[in-house]
Formats: sequence, structure tokens, C-alpha cells
Amino acid sequence: MLLDWLNAPCHAIDHATAAAARAHQDQLTKPRGSLGRLEEMAIRLAGMQGTATPSPDPVRILQFVSDHGVAAEGVSCFPREVTVQMLHNIAQGGAAVSVMAKAIDAVMEIFDLGIAVDPGPVVGVRSERLGAGTGNIAHEAAMTEEQLAAALTIGRTAVERAVAEGARLLICGEMGIGNTTPATALACALLDLEPTLLTGPGTGLDAPGIAHKAQVIASALQRHVEATSTPLELLRRLGGFDIAASAGAFIRAAQLGLPILVDGFIISAAALVAVRIQPNVRDWMLFAHGSAEPGHRHMMAALNADPYLHLQMRLGEATGGATLVPLLRLACVVHQQMATFETAGVSSAAG
Amino acid sequence: MLLDWLNAPCHAIDHATAAAARAHQDQLTKPRGSLGRLEEMAIRLAGMQGTATPSPDPVRILQFVSDHGVAAEGVSCFPREVTVQMLHNIAQGGAAVSVMAKAIDAVMEIFDLGIAVDPGPVVGVRSERLGAGTGNIAHEAAMTEEQLAAALTIGRTAVERAVAEGARLLICGEMGIGNTTPATALACALLDLEPTLLTGPGTGLDAPGIAHKAQVIASALQRHVEATSTPLELLRRLGGFDIAASAGAFIRAAQLGLPILVDGFIISAAALVAVRIQPNVRDWMLFAHGSAEPGHRHMMAALNADPYLHLQMRLGEATGGATLVPLLRLACVVHQQMATFETAGVSSAAG
Repeated sequence: MLLDWLNAPCHAIDHATAAAARAHQDQLTKPRGSLGRLEEMAIRLAGMQGTATPSPDPVRILQFVSDHGVAAEGVSCFPREVTVQMLHNIAQGGAAVSVMAKAIDAVMEIFDLGIAVDPGPVVGVRSERLGAGTGNIAHEAAMTEEQLAAALTIGRTAVERAVAEGARLLICGEMGIGNTTPATALACALLDLEPTLLTGPGTGLDAPGIAHKAQVIASALQRHVEATSTPLELLRRLGGFDIAASAGAFIRAAQLGLPILVDGFIISAAALVAVRIQPNVRDWMLFAHGSAEPGHRHMMAALNADPYLHLQMRLGEATGGATLVPLLRLACVVHQQMATFETAGVSSAAG
Repeated sequence: MLLDWLNAPCHAIDHATAAAARAHQDQLTKPRGSLGRLEEMAIRLAGMQGTATPSPDPVRILQFVSDHGVAAEGVSCFPREVTVQMLHNIAQGGAAVSVMAKAIDAVMEIFDLGIAVDPGPVVGVRSERLGAGTGNIAHEAAMTEEQLAAALTIGRTAVERAVAEGARLLICGEMGIGNTTPATALACALLDLEPTLLTGPGTGLDAPGIAHKAQVIASALQRHVEATSTPLELLRRLGGFDIAASAGAFIRAAQLGLPILVDGFIISAAALVAVRIQPNVRDWMLFAHGSAEPGHRHMMAALNADPYLHLQMRLGEATGGATLVPLLRLACVVHQQMATFETAGVSSAAG
């Protein structure tokens, strides 16, 4: 079958190297454990990368831009044409993630996976259009089986290209008006939670707007959930091109041994479905930040994830992931360059 | 009087520039407020620096190394000779802060304010020794009036030097075996809280060790608190050379308009006493991280501070401050380089 690759085994975490990294941390000239989660970052990357000198560099960002049919239901503060406007803005360097990617020296690939109107060739954008947006999940499936397979494969291929070019950390991002709605619907279905519990303001809805959005999600769940319960079919019916491409990228990254840094709300829905398709993908994930979008904590709990940053961010576009990168670097340089008690001639703790 | 300079007024925050920075953030191509506390970082720095192009650079770290007489009471896991060993390690580049300062491209001045045994000249270390460690606060005042004035003045002079050399962000750090004990004692006295509530493991004490440390702190409080209640006299009796120098540095930074990034537990005690001496110093402070040392949250609450990072760090040495610097940079570059809705031709939110 076309999607058999999803079931190929994940690369094995190098637990011996992770244990050695932990032991090394305990020899560095500081009270044991006193760098807290910076130590954890270096140790986890060491285990994933199988090296005593872990590093997030080079960082690869995959930016998936697409439209969502459910935007027609009035679930966003912004009009749908913002998606194409933002595609240009991301490509021209004016978006938050564009500035951040340059500042953190990450290579970013920008994808048009299917915005409502074909923008034609755009410098810096890969046109891999799967349609003029997804289907409106309130009434129909988001994707056909062919679209789903193609979206997953775009993610897979992008990761294979990144690995071939030497990438050592993967961040997926997304932009697309309305996309907290499919992400929330998918999370509700996967976690068996009520839409009212998970639905949030997205780009800034007020309380009536949130209530309406929750109702749209409830309709979508009623329309689709009874038909199925496999994660792949839920992804096809309730997800989006961005979420599917990210899920495919995550599964392939885990298969090839490329560490994953999970961004915010929408990308966490992709992470969740990837882990439901293949649980070992979880071992390859670091979680950048806790989104201000209220449903995010339910996804984090389901993934047994404790994100590193809590900065009330809720922008998407891989900006949460990009923000953690400098701290991953600092964690790794400390791991590699600090003196040990022995080399520095420092007495260690008594007892 | 020798310490009259402490009462000179603080520089005024430029509220108009901060308001303009906030308005600018709302024009950038993202949902309003969606970069959360990254926006806040840029806005606060803009108001402190009085510019539409805020930046933490150049960063100046003042590293205050000293010994504490109360170490004789067995309040640390590490023997006292570790202070001089770590002074050498910091100067030679092997300590956590040495690696971080280099990685974040900060200028660090390292001070011997009075470790137990004079190490003689050490390359890269300013010898400004005020004694062979402080007095043991369980039995006597930490400092004489002359020592207190000299420590405050060392901080003041270091800040004047940093400003003259163009520094735009100040971080104070400390290293000295036993120094969570005076920091905790000082915080208890200033906040009128019980030692059992604020006392923590420091470098890694077990429960009986913590109980003993709390008892030592209770003795010190009983010995000194009834004699006085002015913050300056509490600092003299219960503090340390490191805490006093940092407090002096903070007050001078606020007077000269240099933004302060407050590090962890010990430096927060210095921040607290500085604010008690002159409340407007608070306006010049950003708080880097919430320390794993349990008493820290009480100090943060008293300072009405909500630290940016929560990474279970508890090392000191300015490492918490250094860890936030890359995020301050990212916040400022986003503030300066993102496109606006108008320049990018992106539609803004409806309503």
C-alpha cells in the first residue's frame, strides 16, 4: 500500500550514549543537576544523535502554508486572503518566523500545500499544491485518500532532503487561516474530549466567537467520528494539508533518527496523530513551548510532554520552536565545554 | 554621609517610548499579542533604553566571588575551599557561566571580593578584597560599616565603568560556598517570613541538612533582627560582600538608566534589598528565571515579579541571566525587523 512506509520502525535511541551524557553532566563543575532542564536538553539530544557532542545545528524548518475549507464557517478573526498574503510575507522575510529563522541561522523551506487561490510562482516557495484548500470538515472530509497520502509524502520527502543536507534538528511550522479549528477537532477525536474543553481563541476570537467555533467542531466530530476511529482516517477527515505533512515529516524523522522540536498548538496535533500512528515517534520529540491556546495542555498531557518554555506565545509558524533553539545551543555548548571537577581541580560535594 | 549616593533618584523610564513600542507591536504581521512575553521583553527594554530599537547588547556580567563566615556552620554540601577553586575555574573558562558568557558574547568582570584565603594575583580577576570572608552571621554581623560601604561602592563603580564602556544590560552573578544561607536570612528578615518557609537545599542538602540550615538562619535572625529593621543595616548584618555589591550595582544601574536582568536566588535577595532601599529600582529590573530553590518564589512575589524562564535551574553564577539573553535578543530583532500589516499588504483582523 502507498502508506506502508508509515509503519517502518523508528531509529533506536542510543540509551548508552544518553547515560554517558548524564554521567558527564554529573562530573561538570556545578552542583549535580543544578542546570536543571538545560542538562536534560543536552542529554536527550545526545541519546538521539548518538554522540557525546550533541548539537541542534544545522536546524531545518519546514513551513507548511495551506488553506482550510472550514474557514468558511467564520472560525477566525482574519479573512481567508490573509493566507496568501502571509505566504508572500514569510517568503519576503517580514513574518515573525522569517526574522527568527534568519536570527537563529536556520534553513527554512516554505511550502504552498494548497492555498485557496494559486499564487503562481513565488520566489522562495515550493509549490506542492494539493488543492485549493481542504474540504470543509463541518460538512465533508478535509482530504481525499490521495491528498492525505500526498501530504504525508511531502513531509517524508522534505525530511529525507533535510537529512541528506545534514540537518540535525527538525522544526515544522504552519500558517493558514482557520487552522486551529481542524487541529482542535483532530485533538478532540484522538483524545475523546469535548470541543468546549479544547476550543480556544486562535488568532483572537471573543467568547461568542469561541462558542461558535466549538459548535462547528462539534458538528465536524458528529459528521466524521462515528465513521471511524483509526488515527490516519481521523487525520484525513478532520485534519489539514499542514497537519498531515507535519505528521509525515515527524514519522520519517523518527525513522531516520532526526530529532524533532515540536512547535505550538497545530503542530502538536500533528505530533499527537504521528504518535498515535506509531508510538515510538514520541522518543524523538522535544517540546518547545506551552501555547497560550488553552487546549494545548491537554495535548501535552496526552503526549506526556512538559514543554520547556511558557511565554504565552500563540502565533504558530514554528516561532515557538525557533525560540527554543538558542537554549538548545547553550545547553549543548555547556555540555561540551565546561570543565570537570577533575580537570579543574575543584573538590566535589561531600557524601 | 558615605552612602548618600544610594538615595540619588533613579533615571526615569521613558513611558512614551514604551507606549510607542507597544503600538508598533500591534502593527506587526501577527495576531495581536501572539508573541506573548517576547513582546513584553522588547517593550520593556524600549522604555528603559528610550529607543524604538532596543537591544540587550553589549551585555555586562559582574561576577562577585566571596566567602561567607556562616559556612563554618556546615550549611553547604561543598567544602569552603571550593570558592577559591571556582574562582580559578571561572577565570580559566571552565565554569558554566564562563562557557555561557563566551557563547552569548557577554563581557564578564570577575571580582574577588574576599575569599577566605587570598589567592594572590589571578589573571582575569579583579582583586577587591574586603576581608577573608564575611563574619559568621549566626554569631556576629556579616560586615562592618566600612565593609558594607565598600561593597556597595564596588558595585556602583563597576556599573559606572560598564556604562562608560557602552553596556546596555547588566547581569550580576555570584559564587561563594554557603551563600544561600545569608541570602535566605536576609530575605526572611525583609519579608518577615519564617526560615523554615524559605530555606532550601542550596547546592544539594538533604532534609536533615536543610533543617539544620534553617536553624542556623533562625539563630542569625534572632541575633540581629531585633537590633534593627532598616534594609541597609539588615544587609550589613545578614548579607554578604556579593549581595551588597550586587545591591549597589542595581541601585547605580537604575540611577544611570541601565536595564538590570536579575539572576537567581542570591541575586534576587540583592534585588530585594536594593528595592527596599529605593523602590524605583524595581522599574529597571527584568527577572530571568524562577529558581528551583524553593524560597525564590516568595522573593519574586514580594517583588511582584514573574520570571520568564522556569527550567529548574539553581546554579547561580549569573547562569540564569545568561540563559535569557538569547531570548531578549530574539525579542528585539523581531520587534525591529518584522513587517507591518501596511508594509506587507496583509489584511488585519476584522472588528
